[in-house]
Amino acid sequence: MTLDNARKFAEQALELARQAAALGEVPVGAIVVHQGRVIGQGHNQPRALNDPTAHAEIMAIRAACAALGTDRLTGCDLWVTLEPCAMCAGAIAHARIARLHYAASDPKGGAVEHGPRLFQQPTVLHKPEVYAGVGAEDAAALLKAFFAERR
Amino acid sequence: MTLDNARKFAEQALELARQAAALGEVPVGAIVVHQGRVIGQGHNQPRALNDPTAHAEIMAIRAACAALGTDRLTGCDLWVTLEPCAMCAGAIAHARIARLHYAASDPKGGAVEHGPRLFQQPTVLHKPEVYAGVGAEDAAALLKAFFAERR
Repeated sequence: MTLDNARKFAEQALELARQAAALGEVPVGAIVVHQGRVIGQGHNQPRALNDPTAHAEIMAIRAACAALGTDRLTGCDLWVTLEPCAMCAGAIAHARIARLHYAASDPKGGAVEHGPRLFQQPTVLHKPEVYAGVGAEDAAALLKAFFAERR
Repeated sequence: MTLDNARKFAEQALELARQAAALGEVPVGAIVVHQGRVIGQGHNQPRALNDPTAHAEIMAIRAACAALGTDRLTGCDLWVTLEPCAMCAGAIAHARIARLHYAASDPKGGAVEHGPRLFQQPTVLHKPEVYAGVGAEDAAALLKAFFAERR
């Protein structure tokens, strides 16, 4: 992957996070990329959908699976603006995502480099390659501004 | 909760697991109970739905949230025939399920008493009461028969 492509995908996920913020949802966005093409996207919307599982990653994975007509995303990349929680990291494993790219770290809710460190568990059924940090500052600033406004 | 009620709810979850098996899906079933009434149910169907997140617990939680028009299942019980995986345990925490009842243990994929032991992590955002073992033999036998047939 070229740096230009990495920047492009990270920016697309960030744009989805901005859309979530505009709707009053925690600003996290995600896309799934297959052979260089975005085949699924999503942002947080548990409130609008009355669905606690409606995190950005889950929305993007479900959309991508629907697009490909499969329950496995072998060979796909997932780009997300925040370190996935345990639910989403579990879904990433079930979906067999090949590469996970996340922007900001999440010491409170993250389950990749924090908390249960799911992909380092001996029982994990699939482990993507993990790349962290591309676009972290923008993604973190968006989250910070969102929560500051609500305090 | 009376023993009769416990038996009844465990049996309802088991019946959903049987339905999954009949459809060729891994036999796990789940229900969500609110004030003594079943408000959501589901069984595994990732293949039929092309959705790797379509585990029994996720299906039941989404249905229950839709029924109540909320993304929080405060005060609700979730009954499931198998120890939840990390994805489902995470969803249970997000949904604020009050009490989790599961039948069979899952040393390979479970994330409650095995692997990441999600509800024992210091960063977990909500921790249900956990009751394990009611109906375990029937639930485990169903899973064993299902996988034996496919080998």
